[in-house]
Amino acid sequence: MKLTKEQLDQFHTEGWLLLPELFTAEEVDLLRREAIAIYEQQRPEVWREKSGAPRTAFAAHKYNEAFRLLGAHPRMIEPVEQVFGEKVYLHQYKINAKSAFTGEVWQWHQDYGTWKRDDGMPEPRAMNISIFLDEVMPINGPLMLVPRSHNAGDLKASHDLETTSYPLWTLDEETVSRLVKEGGIVAPTGKAGSMLMFHGNLVHGSAGNITPYPRKIVYLTLNAVSNYIRKPTRAEFIAHQDFAPIEPVDDDALIRLARAQRQAA
Amino acid sequence: MKLTKEQLDQFHTEGWLLLPELFTAEEVDLLRREAIAIYEQQRPEVWREKSGAPRTAFAAHKYNEAFRLLGAHPRMIEPVEQVFGEKVYLHQYKINAKSAFTGEVWQWHQDYGTWKRDDGMPEPRAMNISIFLDEVMPINGPLMLVPRSHNAGDLKASHDLETTSYPLWTLDEETVSRLVKEGGIVAPTGKAGSMLMFHGNLVHGSAGNITPYPRKIVYLTLNAVSNYIRKPTRAEFIAHQDFAPIEPVDDDALIRLARAQRQAA
Repeated sequence: MKLTKEQLDQFHTEGWLLLPELFTAEEVDLLRREAIAIYEQQRPEVWREKSGAPRTAFAAHKYNEAFRLLGAHPRMIEPVEQVFGEKVYLHQYKINAKSAFTGEVWQWHQDYGTWKRDDGMPEPRAMNISIFLDEVMPINGPLMLVPRSHNAGDLKASHDLETTSYPLWTLDEETVSRLVKEGGIVAPTGKAGSMLMFHGNLVHGSAGNITPYPRKIVYLTLNAVSNYIRKPTRAEFIAHQDFAPIEPVDDDALIRLARAQRQAA
Repeated sequence: MKLTKEQLDQFHTEGWLLLPELFTAEEVDLLRREAIAIYEQQRPEVWREKSGAPRTAFAAHKYNEAFRLLGAHPRMIEPVEQVFGEKVYLHQYKINAKSAFTGEVWQWHQDYGTWKRDDGMPEPRAMNISIFLDEVMPINGPLMLVPRSHNAGDLKASHDLETTSYPLWTLDEETVSRLVKEGGIVAPTGKAGSMLMFHGNLVHGSAGNITPYPRKIVYLTLNAVSNYIRKPTRAEFIAHQDFAPIEPVDDDALIRLARAQRQAA
């Protein structure tokens, strides 16, 4: 799994890259079933919207075998190692629900702002990865990205503890307007199994979802090992402190698990 | 201004029809400027979101010359008369703001439900018209329609007085899921000046808008004169009681006003 020169160029210029249907329907079906089962659990890693619907589940690689394999999958890891030129570890691992009918907003923000302020991460050498577990459509609250905004550096932000159930360092309207005027907005869409990579400083957000179509994505942060966090303040299940480089599993690991589950059923 | 047989067929089968760029840039620029000026006024017809941003302005045809001309414009009136086979009057006239950054949700609903319950309208022989004052994009909270749902009749609804600043008879998730399974969802987009017509029983809603792009639309209801409302309960500026048929103005009336304003400037 190697990115082409064109793909690398797009990532560096625009700040994002979509790899359509990188995972197969069989692999994604397994992950989707497991995600739904995780959301039904009452545990501190599962956070909910004001409505009670799931918003995100943290650190599923630590308590779910399918998500453990995904978190070390070579199709995900290798492109990121290629960009950073070194091994990576898992800084954060979430399954974001954006539930049907009630999925709430994520306000405009940069992720590196949070990693720096809350976790003491030295540089924006960590990659955001979104793996679609449902089809992402224009109408079910896709991630919206401001292309090229990763060049704007670490922008002034305010800690929003009010708007939603998730505390977030958000950008002001003037800053977002200026960056959108320069770069526009893209909302990459695609079938389940697609993977979106984007820069830790890329400005992004997502609107609410009022459709009957849920929009679950796995949302991971892969940090370059040399860029490990220096001043953790958040719980270990939110910002991990195991800085050992990920050793990729076999490419067919998820498929084998899916087939083993079917035989056992 | 006559609809073709294909256009009429689409309206009757799908419940909606988009007429791209029916009004010119010059006409829409005038209306957009006037809408912004109206939103700045403190008056009972201008309703606001919880954030203070404008949500909608009622009955602008009664206090604004440009919107008076739009409300009697032959390019809007004639297609509706053609569908109903009789003259029409203005039942409701709103300019919906869906403001940049803060524009709120409109939950899933049918408009005829409100007209029947609150206004005593005998039949769903009233047409919803949306005229785009800004470009409507997939990302700035476009109207979402459930095609063919106008055949489902008048569906059970609950009066939502909580979710937003506007009281609305909304549909439950089970009903919306069933209708979307049958008909899907469309979110017609287009340049400013485009006009969307849809059936009074067509299920629709719109998500919030977190982008820097406002999405102002004029949202009118044209009722067949014979179908005038029998039991008004809402204020006159919300559900009008002047049932006189609209006499269309000249096709160039808006252009002439725009040019007169420019000369006076």
